[in-house]
Amino acid sequence: MKLKVYADRMSQPSRAVLILCKANGIDFEEIKVEISKRQQLSPEFEAINPFKKLPAIVDGSFKLFESHAILIYIASAFPGVANHWYPADLTRRSKVHSVLDWHHLNLRHGAAAYVLNTVLAPALGLPLNQQAAAQAEKILISSLSKIENIWLQGNGRYLLGSFQPSIADLSLVCEIMQLELLDENDRDRILGPHKKVQQWIESTRNATKPHFDEVHNVLYKMKMKLSTQLSNQADGAKESRIKTPLSSKL
Amino acid sequence: MKLKVYADRMSQPSRAVLILCKANGIDFEEIKVEISKRQQLSPEFEAINPFKKLPAIVDGSFKLFESHAILIYIASAFPGVANHWYPADLTRRSKVHSVLDWHHLNLRHGAAAYVLNTVLAPALGLPLNQQAAAQAEKILISSLSKIENIWLQGNGRYLLGSFQPSIADLSLVCEIMQLELLDENDRDRILGPHKKVQQWIESTRNATKPHFDEVHNVLYKMKMKLSTQLSNQADGAKESRIKTPLSSKL
Repeated sequence: MKLKVYADRMSQPSRAVLILCKANGIDFEEIKVEISKRQQLSPEFEAINPFKKLPAIVDGSFKLFESHAILIYIASAFPGVANHWYPADLTRRSKVHSVLDWHHLNLRHGAAAYVLNTVLAPALGLPLNQQAAAQAEKILISSLSKIENIWLQGNGRYLLGSFQPSIADLSLVCEIMQLELLDENDRDRILGPHKKVQQWIESTRNATKPHFDEVHNVLYKMKMKLSTQLSNQADGAKESRIKTPLSSKL
Repeated sequence: MKLKVYADRMSQPSRAVLILCKANGIDFEEIKVEISKRQQLSPEFEAINPFKKLPAIVDGSFKLFESHAILIYIASAFPGVANHWYPADLTRRSKVHSVLDWHHLNLRHGAAAYVLNTVLAPALGLPLNQQAAAQAEKILISSLSKIENIWLQGNGRYLLGSFQPSIADLSLVCEIMQLELLDENDRDRILGPHKKVQQWIESTRNATKPHFDEVHNVLYKMKMKLSTQLSNQADGAKESRIKTPLSSKL
């Protein structure tokens, strides 16, 4: 029975799992679970992941959730996955675990909350929260500096100075990619000072092409949708500023 | 060369690493790095962990930080560690990874921030933050419910319905143990409704005795210190209430 990957490409950990599968030629079935339609809350999906979060996989009778656990499982269970994704050598493998563990309360915590509270919340029927955005921005910028100055030290183009990407590169780069949803000036302000981070994103994209852009396509489309909404709102606001003095004379 | 464990027993992930080593008879050297004296910020420690956090290990020339990565490394590198701590079977191992990944943005995120902002901050020279405590309390209580109703489902006494503890049990139980620092009524209010969680803490304590209590002893001592301070503050407040009317008459 084929591996089933339950994913929403708008979810960055879902994208990391899909790209790992595609880049390694794994025969799998992608099952779309749309967060914007709250499909992850359905009883069918709850039976797969009681925490109602994406991604999740089913391999035969085995169910698993939490993206890092899934990435490790796929790299271990499918012999076709090249060693660099999840090195067999214990010390190299342990360093990959160290990056993955660090990620949760740093880059992921900052990036996900910043994008949610700056642009994405309305699309999910939630309010934008400026205070939460400000807190998240601090964590995000500090995390990017640490990636630039600590994790990307060394001779290679990838995390831990490696010459080939690991599942940690995939997880962290997919997280940063959601900054595509931000207003371009805001994205440049945040990512601009981190030149090594930008090169590393490009290296990861190149190492996994054409799958990287194919899986991220949904994000680029959402960006256009958000830009159009923003521009319409701005036009609306402009129009209402013009109209207000008129209506006040009525 | 002996394994070196850099730890502060007041740090819950440090305690998890120490207990794993002791419970498995690993010959190691514990090197105290006191957070209350900011020793983790020293250049000597920064050379071991550039993120300046505890715990960290040095095994020969190999340096590692992030407690989950360390627990996995120790369970893998030392043949004396029993299989149940980090199962060799891929599906069982993957489930352990799943719990460990879940932990970061759930129980750890809630418990650490709640204890810090309710009782511990002044001892570290930081202000108490009621708003942060309230946010953390929600995450903590929701996490405890999920442990009770999801992770502790099954026949065994441990997470994932297991009959013997894994490194995930150790990590999560050590996190919950810091609730010992709370006022007893507050601790009972939070832990009281979670009977399975309480039994599981006891099972983990029993499975690792006498090391569990020996390593947690510093926490029990700190609890007494905090209680004495609180009681002195209450006496001081009482005294000042008595004195105030007298001084106002002068």
